[in-house]
Amino acid sequence: MDIQTWIQQEQTNILAGLETFLRYPTISAQANYQSTLHACAHWLKDYLHALGFQTALYGEPPIVYAYYEGPRGAPTLLFYGHYDVQPPEPLELWETPPFQPTIREGAIYARGACDDKGQVWTHLTAWRYWTAHGGLPVSLHVLIEGQEETGSETLYKVLEQNGHLWKADAGIVSDTAFFSEEFPTLTTGLRGLLYTEIRVEGPARDLHSGTLGGVVQNPAWALATILAQLKGPDGRILIPGFYDEVLPPDPLLRRQWQTLPAHESYYLSITGAPALWGEVGFSPLERATIRPTLDVHGLYSGYIGEGSKTIIPAYATAKVSMRLVPRQNPEKIWEAFQRYIHELTPPGVRISVSRLHEPAPAFETPTDSPFYQAAAEAVHEAFGKAPIPLKEGGSIPVLSALQKFISGPIVLMGFGLPTDQIHSPNEHFRLHQLWRGIHAAIAFYQKAGTLRVATPEP
Amino acid sequence: MDIQTWIQQEQTNILAGLETFLRYPTISAQANYQSTLHACAHWLKDYLHALGFQTALYGEPPIVYAYYEGPRGAPTLLFYGHYDVQPPEPLELWETPPFQPTIREGAIYARGACDDKGQVWTHLTAWRYWTAHGGLPVSLHVLIEGQEETGSETLYKVLEQNGHLWKADAGIVSDTAFFSEEFPTLTTGLRGLLYTEIRVEGPARDLHSGTLGGVVQNPAWALATILAQLKGPDGRILIPGFYDEVLPPDPLLRRQWQTLPAHESYYLSITGAPALWGEVGFSPLERATIRPTLDVHGLYSGYIGEGSKTIIPAYATAKVSMRLVPRQNPEKIWEAFQRYIHELTPPGVRISVSRLHEPAPAFETPTDSPFYQAAAEAVHEAFGKAPIPLKEGGSIPVLSALQKFISGPIVLMGFGLPTDQIHSPNEHFRLHQLWRGIHAAIAFYQKAGTLRVATPEP
Repeated sequence: MDIQTWIQQEQTNILAGLETFLRYPTISAQANYQSTLHACAHWLKDYLHALGFQTALYGEPPIVYAYYEGPRGAPTLLFYGHYDVQPPEPLELWETPPFQPTIREGAIYARGACDDKGQVWTHLTAWRYWTAHGGLPVSLHVLIEGQEETGSETLYKVLEQNGHLWKADAGIVSDTAFFSEEFPTLTTGLRGLLYTEIRVEGPARDLHSGTLGGVVQNPAWALATILAQLKGPDGRILIPGFYDEVLPPDPLLRRQWQTLPAHESYYLSITGAPALWGEVGFSPLERATIRPTLDVHGLYSGYIGEGSKTIIPAYATAKVSMRLVPRQNPEKIWEAFQRYIHELTPPGVRISVSRLHEPAPAFETPTDSPFYQAAAEAVHEAFGKAPIPLKEGGSIPVLSALQKFISGPIVLMGFGLPTDQIHSPNEHFRLHQLWRGIHAAIAFYQKAGTLRVATPEP
Repeated sequence: MDIQTWIQQEQTNILAGLETFLRYPTISAQANYQSTLHACAHWLKDYLHALGFQTALYGEPPIVYAYYEGPRGAPTLLFYGHYDVQPPEPLELWETPPFQPTIREGAIYARGACDDKGQVWTHLTAWRYWTAHGGLPVSLHVLIEGQEETGSETLYKVLEQNGHLWKADAGIVSDTAFFSEEFPTLTTGLRGLLYTEIRVEGPARDLHSGTLGGVVQNPAWALATILAQLKGPDGRILIPGFYDEVLPPDPLLRRQWQTLPAHESYYLSITGAPALWGEVGFSPLERATIRPTLDVHGLYSGYIGEGSKTIIPAYATAKVSMRLVPRQNPEKIWEAFQRYIHELTPPGVRISVSRLHEPAPAFETPTDSPFYQAAAEAVHEAFGKAPIPLKEGGSIPVLSALQKFISGPIVLMGFGLPTDQIHSPNEHFRLHQLWRGIHAAIAFYQKAGTLRVATPEP
């Protein structure tokens, strides 16, 4: 039976399994959900065990590890994915509840539908295909973690202890997106991430802003003055030394990208913003992929309820992250960031800056490897068009750590679309991308299985 | 029986009544509490009715109105107070729940204990004293409203319709504080208030800050840049024209104030701030009373939960108010503020600015009136020391509207202390101030009753 027919016959099964996966509210950022992360990890482990993998759980929240022994002489791959999801807030903007998967208008809606459960599911389904068709054509280490959205702390630790046991010839990850439905894409690089929290403390408690207004520094205003000085009106980040290692864009790539329909109107439609804005001198596509950025993700101070309250708040906080590009050293940037924040702090308040994540450098996949070619051919076969190589602005922080145990490239064969609203309310995954993604995954393992790599004898 | 003996005998009764009053969570800012405001207003009305007042409720939330016909020839006073309170948040910082009044260490703790239920209670008790001792020595209009903390919208309307029926020779209000326990004070002026909310809107929804970071303006950062430009590093407010009408401080008053122990250490101890900060060239006392200020009361944007979420938030909001001094016109400042905010708004976002309150000009009480003298003597009698005249930085926005119907001064005879933590967690009212305040109120009505005013014949 050919791949397409098998997928068609299995549609109901495939969706039922994915819906079960999506029903676990695996919110790694919130302490309440730790038992749910466990439950989901156990469910995945059992699923892989039933497919014939050797399985184990590592660390807390559990990393699902599985191993499949492929044909002698076939290459060994390492698959990486994550079963945790972003917090679903603001809940009131979801048309259907985030953890009750719903199919409508050709897409499945749920938190994690695309990032990353739906994409992980294309591989679990591909493995099921192969175990039903004579076995996987490769040896495969599987790592599905529950902390990608919060910094992969456990995976970093587990890799230090066990990474050498999971050596592979290439890595495969589906956690990225096409440029658009019309332009199948293989992602050739990701930005790094440095995620911080700034806390400004002033008076010992909220004060009456009438009787004491004018006497002390206002922490909310002090925080605003700090944040305002992080970027200039030209969109450039003002942290001293921030751009020191950043290379100008490759002129060849720049010209290639100009052929893509990455027009202003395209970005306006996917963002719904009144106008685009960013670093002067770069196109929106360049700003979203190969230029570093700084964003404020959350602001809190004082009274944010209905109506008015006249206080000088005791403290104010902001969550701020930077996306980093190749050659930027996250530790160096972290030092420079802290130093700059302290310099910017006005008198009358105390400041503290912390990291909420293990910082990650940018990541790149070389395109000249046969494994990259195998993925390109698989996507071509499944989607009917050769994929374009393109960098993506997001981050998968742990990839650099995984790379140490993988001799070849980590191939980023993602099937999302920029319109999937990942990290936003109403996240979804288009069924068309799901079916074709499964097809591409099945084809990828087949093509990868034919490659022969020179492995040193043990 | 002398006043002090009566108060001592009545202590249990007085506290029981005040505790009942404090148990109503009369939070005017929050829609959930509207029925509670009703219940409290009815309770007050019944209480006044039982004392022999004619009573009525006006508007929504109800204004408690009462009238007592005093001896022929005695002056007519108007008492103003409020039964609503500030929101109690953050709840976790209260040592005992905000609406379960608790007596400890010589004070009664509850939201509203000082602002303004406890102070209103000194007058209700004084009226009870007088009705038990031959009747009040004055005619009295009573207005106790339920919207002082949120802008007195109803009272403004009711005054337009009925104010002419409530004409008085002088006003009496207890909603201010002593400089300290050692320095009994009569407040001779209050700052005005202009309370606003700024909302910055960017993308149509929260966006993934990796895939789209760099493409659009970040509303939280845009808001920070706006707020940062509202004040300079010298603490001066940068709204064009803001200081145009502000007079320099009276050199005589300035010298008088230098004799007060309003030292830096005093303000550090009552604020708990790491250092004082404010407009260059003015003492902390001057900055807190006779200089205009601008404060941020609340900041909100994006994800403020535990851990990290990588989004470009769809919007950001700030609550910002200005305290105004004599001669500053709130409407003119409001126009200038809006214009300036629009000028400051960076590209790529939409801005809106709204008022959460009816804006109020600053208020002043002349000290050369016999009613002011009566209050000064009453405070002297009760507290054993002549009160000092001093301006206060807070606002009672509706006073200017009340003044239209009052031919003489509105006397601000408040009994709070700067350490009472009004608007903060653990608000309290010292029992010493309660007992002496009741004494002062009883004495004030006695002294006021002896004054004769030339009233035009009807």
